[in-house]
Amino acid sequence: MVRPAGAGGPTLAVIAREAGVSVPTASKVANGREDVAPETRRRVTEVLDRLGYVRRPRSTASAPPALIDLVVHRLDSTWSGAVLHGVEEAAHEAGLGIVVSAALTGARGGRPERGWLDKLCARGSSGVLFNVAELNSTQYAWLEQHRIPYVMIDPVLDPPPGVPSVGATNWQGGVSATEHLIGLGHERIAIIGGYRRKLCSSARVAGYRSAMASAGLRVPAEYVRYGSFSETGAHRQMTELLALPERPTAVFACSDAMALGVYQALREHGLSAPDDVSVVGFDDLPQAHWATPALTTVRQPLSEMAATALRLLLRMMEGERPEGTRTELSTRLVIRESAAPPKTV
Amino acid sequence: MVRPAGAGGPTLAVIAREAGVSVPTASKVANGREDVAPETRRRVTEVLDRLGYVRRPRSTASAPPALIDLVVHRLDSTWSGAVLHGVEEAAHEAGLGIVVSAALTGARGGRPERGWLDKLCARGSSGVLFNVAELNSTQYAWLEQHRIPYVMIDPVLDPPPGVPSVGATNWQGGVSATEHLIGLGHERIAIIGGYRRKLCSSARVAGYRSAMASAGLRVPAEYVRYGSFSETGAHRQMTELLALPERPTAVFACSDAMALGVYQALREHGLSAPDDVSVVGFDDLPQAHWATPALTTVRQPLSEMAATALRLLLRMMEGERPEGTRTELSTRLVIRESAAPPKTV
Repeated sequence: MVRPAGAGGPTLAVIAREAGVSVPTASKVANGREDVAPETRRRVTEVLDRLGYVRRPRSTASAPPALIDLVVHRLDSTWSGAVLHGVEEAAHEAGLGIVVSAALTGARGGRPERGWLDKLCARGSSGVLFNVAELNSTQYAWLEQHRIPYVMIDPVLDPPPGVPSVGATNWQGGVSATEHLIGLGHERIAIIGGYRRKLCSSARVAGYRSAMASAGLRVPAEYVRYGSFSETGAHRQMTELLALPERPTAVFACSDAMALGVYQALREHGLSAPDDVSVVGFDDLPQAHWATPALTTVRQPLSEMAATALRLLLRMMEGERPEGTRTELSTRLVIRESAAPPKTV
Repeated sequence: MVRPAGAGGPTLAVIAREAGVSVPTASKVANGREDVAPETRRRVTEVLDRLGYVRRPRSTASAPPALIDLVVHRLDSTWSGAVLHGVEEAAHEAGLGIVVSAALTGARGGRPERGWLDKLCARGSSGVLFNVAELNSTQYAWLEQHRIPYVMIDPVLDPPPGVPSVGATNWQGGVSATEHLIGLGHERIAIIGGYRRKLCSSARVAGYRSAMASAGLRVPAEYVRYGSFSETGAHRQMTELLALPERPTAVFACSDAMALGVYQALREHGLSAPDDVSVVGFDDLPQAHWATPALTTVRQPLSEMAATALRLLLRMMEGERPEGTRTELSTRLVIRESAAPPKTV
């Protein structure tokens, strides 16, 4: 577990730097865990002794491990599965336990629900990872006031200045999805974004616009739509796109769920991807692989983003201030079967 | 949080019985939580006072809530998403926090991995829910020795006598899947079970055999196969079924993942469900709904099973001994598009 030294003593971050190892490794040695190479252990032990770090004696190696909280929007989704997987692996590495809870903000105007703030405080949570759309100003104020370190994983709304977050390169992902369709020969390419004014969504739409502009392609106003990141929202938008006098031959849906809504609208019109309309999604959740046709999509490295957020939180728990407040991990286009060259008319 | 009274005082279970409310409700009132109806609060308060329950004063309502552990095989699956969802909801109701960890038993012979037993003990875990295939005898002994209450959610192996578990009515599910196919007019019905000698799998196969026998239908030895609950395992078994001189016209795959393996084998032979072979799955995970054709399957109420296990654990934490050690919740056939009457030859 991670446990800062007593008042005035060196932190584990200092020990780690001095010994040339990571903070988790220093923590392991300081807490008497077995899974450290002998030479590393010797080096860290020497630094611990030299700098006077107050180690927990081996006999109390059973003292409670630190707990951190992970708050997700909902637990029964493949999205949260990927996030949880990444957080748990990284937490295990660091000797931390994870307390999981769902549904932070509810229908009642985003007020702190279900007493979670009190619970966090009562439990003496060492830190919190949030994978929710947004927090409100009361919640941010509460966290600051209680000096609980926290990191946002892929927030939908841009968090206030100074709040660290980990996301994906949404703009670049939007570019690569669109460039893939352009490369296949499409010119009439529509986009179904998530929410009009929200961070991750607007970055993907901006990437689409950049790629279209670079290729000298026109973006009619009716080709840019928003489907609230939901299957039904995208289904409605795609139905409208199919009713246009000049139908798109390709659609970039800014989430996999929305791509499945596009598939459904196509089926209802007796059409299919990629024969009639090419489709590219965003996320690469398991359903992208299970769908028929298997979905070409932009992979967000959700588990890696979650693990990165945890490691950032760990450093903040050790007293470090993160240098930048926004970390972005690369997206990657995963080519499957839903996009192909347009039929020549 | 749930907190038994001091030595000699009445437990919350006694309070709850006396007041005619559930233990979680009694716990809420005892711990000063807000979300209880006024009349209920009045009744419970009266009993608390009369029986001399040592309540926590309102001013320390921020004392740490009890934590329970949930250990699942892996976190990045729709299965664990459903389990987690059920546990978290029920835990929230009871004012408990959930500590989640993955991958209890590993490749190294099922030995306690990753120090989880020590972690449980160090944290003073109030109880553990396991959703893993099995525990070994060392692990069972350790839990008994440390007097940590625990409940198994849908164990693959029959747990030792006295260990409480919550599962689904696997035999009945096997019957209803098979009867559905028989009702459609199929006579040559094969089954792909999970593991030959394991609890949930053998119960489903037994249900299949019972339904076939009741209908006076023959079960050739080569029609009963095992695919290790994996997509690839089922793909291999289905490929062999398709090579038989007398092919089945319907297949009951004992998990949704295996049904997807059956779909793949069919596609590779230029065949499809339900036109050439009818397919019924088991589980009703989200992928059953996303697959093409949407899978007819036997729904296991995973979230409800998980919530039931949590409530059982809660009673054990209050000192009750469960009356029976096995609770089974009903399965239900969900009819979608993968099974239809056989083609007349």
